[in-house]
Amino acid sequence: MMPVFIAVCGSDAEDASVSAETLLTAEHIGALIAQRGGVVVCGGRGGIMEAACKGASQAGGLTIGLLPNNKDEANAFVTVPLATGLGMQRNVLVVSTADAVIALAGRWGTLNEISYAMIQHKPVVLMAGTGGCVDELVTGHLMKPAAAQVAVATSAADAVEKAFALCQKQ
Amino acid sequence: MMPVFIAVCGSDAEDASVSAETLLTAEHIGALIAQRGGVVVCGGRGGIMEAACKGASQAGGLTIGLLPNNKDEANAFVTVPLATGLGMQRNVLVVSTADAVIALAGRWGTLNEISYAMIQHKPVVLMAGTGGCVDELVTGHLMKPAAAQVAVATSAADAVEKAFALCQKQ
Amino acid sequence: MMPVFIAVCGSDAEDASVSAETLLTAEHIGALIAQRGGVVVCGGRGGIMEAACKGASQAGGLTIGLLPNNKDEANAFVTVPLATGLGMQRNVLVVSTADAVIALAGRWGTLNEISYAMIQHKPVVLMAGTGGCVDELVTGHLMKPAAAQVAVATSAADAVEKAFALCQKQ
Amino acid sequence: MMPVFIAVCGSDAEDASVSAETLLTAEHIGALIAQRGGVVVCGGRGGIMEAACKGASQAGGLTIGLLPNNKDEANAFVTVPLATGLGMQRNVLVVSTADAVIALAGRWGTLNEISYAMIQHKPVVLMAGTGGCVDELVTGHLMKPAAAQVAVATSAADAVEKAFALCQKQ
Repeated sequence: MMPVFIAVCGSDAEDASVSAETLLTAEHIGALIAQRGGVVVCGGRGGIMEAACKGASQAGGLTIGLLPNNKDEANAFVTVPLATGLGMQRNVLVVSTADAVIALAGRWGTLNEISYAMIQHKPVVLMAGTGGCVDELVTGHLMKPAAAQVAVATSAADAVEKAFALCQKQ
Repeated sequence: MMPVFIAVCGSDAEDASVSAETLLTAEHIGALIAQRGGVVVCGGRGGIMEAACKGASQAGGLTIGLLPNNKDEANAFVTVPLATGLGMQRNVLVVSTADAVIALAGRWGTLNEISYAMIQHKPVVLMAGTGGCVDELVTGHLMKPAAAQVAVATSAADAVEKAFALCQKQ
Repeated sequence: MMPVFIAVCGSDAEDASVSAETLLTAEHIGALIAQRGGVVVCGGRGGIMEAACKGASQAGGLTIGLLPNNKDEANAFVTVPLATGLGMQRNVLVVSTADAVIALAGRWGTLNEISYAMIQHKPVVLMAGTGGCVDELVTGHLMKPAAAQVAVATSAADAVEKAFALCQKQ
Repeated sequence: MMPVFIAVCGSDAEDASVSAETLLTAEHIGALIAQRGGVVVCGGRGGIMEAACKGASQAGGLTIGLLPNNKDEANAFVTVPLATGLGMQRNVLVVSTADAVIALAGRWGTLNEISYAMIQHKPVVLMAGTGGCVDELVTGHLMKPAAAQVAVATSAADAVEKAFALCQKQ
């Protein structure tokens, strides 16, 4: 049976506003996805992406990194590094190849991925309390009209549970 | 001298929440861009895009439509219809080919284009009072950290003035 | 009525094997396309592309340059410079936006565009005697199975005549 | 250590000219890539792609399918199905994500992938005697100027040996 592919989206390592706690949450999310037999898909770089890959790979899971340009951009926990050559336009592939998106913290690239998920009618789980654009979306009105496609999670376990549940509803 | 390319982004004709007044504002924006020698770039379809193209072409300006798939998707006021074959992924080209973005109303595709503009460090002018994701961005906190790159406009003339001014600052 | 868009594909200015005569042929082709009311589409850079744009723009025609990255890559005769941000992957857009392709000389990028034209079932006119990959295709067997979609031309006038004729057949 | 990614390119199942022997060669190539610890990258569909994935997955290797649109387009032997949403424009990703390309038989899509490999300076191994565009390239002059980047193979073992050797030279 085909495994479920969950995109984990969020800030790269250059975003100094991401807390150590948020990185641990991302790592926990990666581990839980792998424990349920899911595959972690991400942009393959540092920060949230690296944390999710670390958690998943240490739990024995597969991690796919859709890299902007070259394979050497991949973090150490990407098991399948894909050098797209598309620069930031590789974002759309993170979403296209996933069955659902879990987002933490994040800046414009994360907002870009969330908007692609909405366009493609993919479920989006917003991790509350992680700051960045994700918390703005949790507290603001922008996502309200799409309540059926969007969930807010309050823990790593809650996020993974909701992502898998929303995949099954589709 | 190279003309300024202004992207006009917003809902297509399927978004019933767009008011007649907002469409008139988009048409006025198109006309003002053309009168200043600018080129209107857009996704080439109906709604806000068609209104902006109508205003620009009736003022003698050039309008470029970056279409999802085929040339026959173009509205009647596109002078240069470009069939990208990229589907909704053509959004990034609307932004890449523009010097600044003016956004009205809009749903996920418009949010997607605004996020690309932020990633590419292109100026964004949000037209207040037009509803949709644009008004959520005007009233919410999401764009606040990028105040230097983003302006809020209260009339068509204000929007075009701010878009050209922000282009020159770059 | 919608104008016909003809892509003119071939070597950029870095290909030292392109003869002055071939550049003149490309310029003549551009002029003839414009005189028939057609639009020249190309990659927007030097060499064959610049020659075709020069001919077309001097004949009062519109020339569209689909540039790899930035507008300042455009040759001086591009009237609509489109900065795609796609690098060499913008090749596909040259083909997608055209109704037919005329190819002269050329290296791997030109072969790439010709292969896209074949995939998209767009007519291809190969300009004989211009060297490069185009002459290899004229004299070799690779294009033989697609005779209905491909024509060989022996002069600029012949190339433009055949490109317009093949567009109408579609 | 990062595994070597080898793209196997060639006709899909709709190309009736592909012989059973050529399919067996593709399967053998897939198996040999996997036995050397390499990853098979391909377009994920039938024909040559399926044969290569079959060989690799039965030898315990990883196979990545970069699919035009949806995951259900994948052949049964793709272990990592990636739904790109790019249609035929996903070809470039097959090449971008690979360290070298082995091509068998093939039509315009295969020629497209080979031209991308040449543009990206990736090694190309042409499998002689498999028909299609690959044999035209083996017997014609088109690839001659790029002799250092291109090899002709006469057996599956020869192809895989040359692909790995050319990767190491880079």
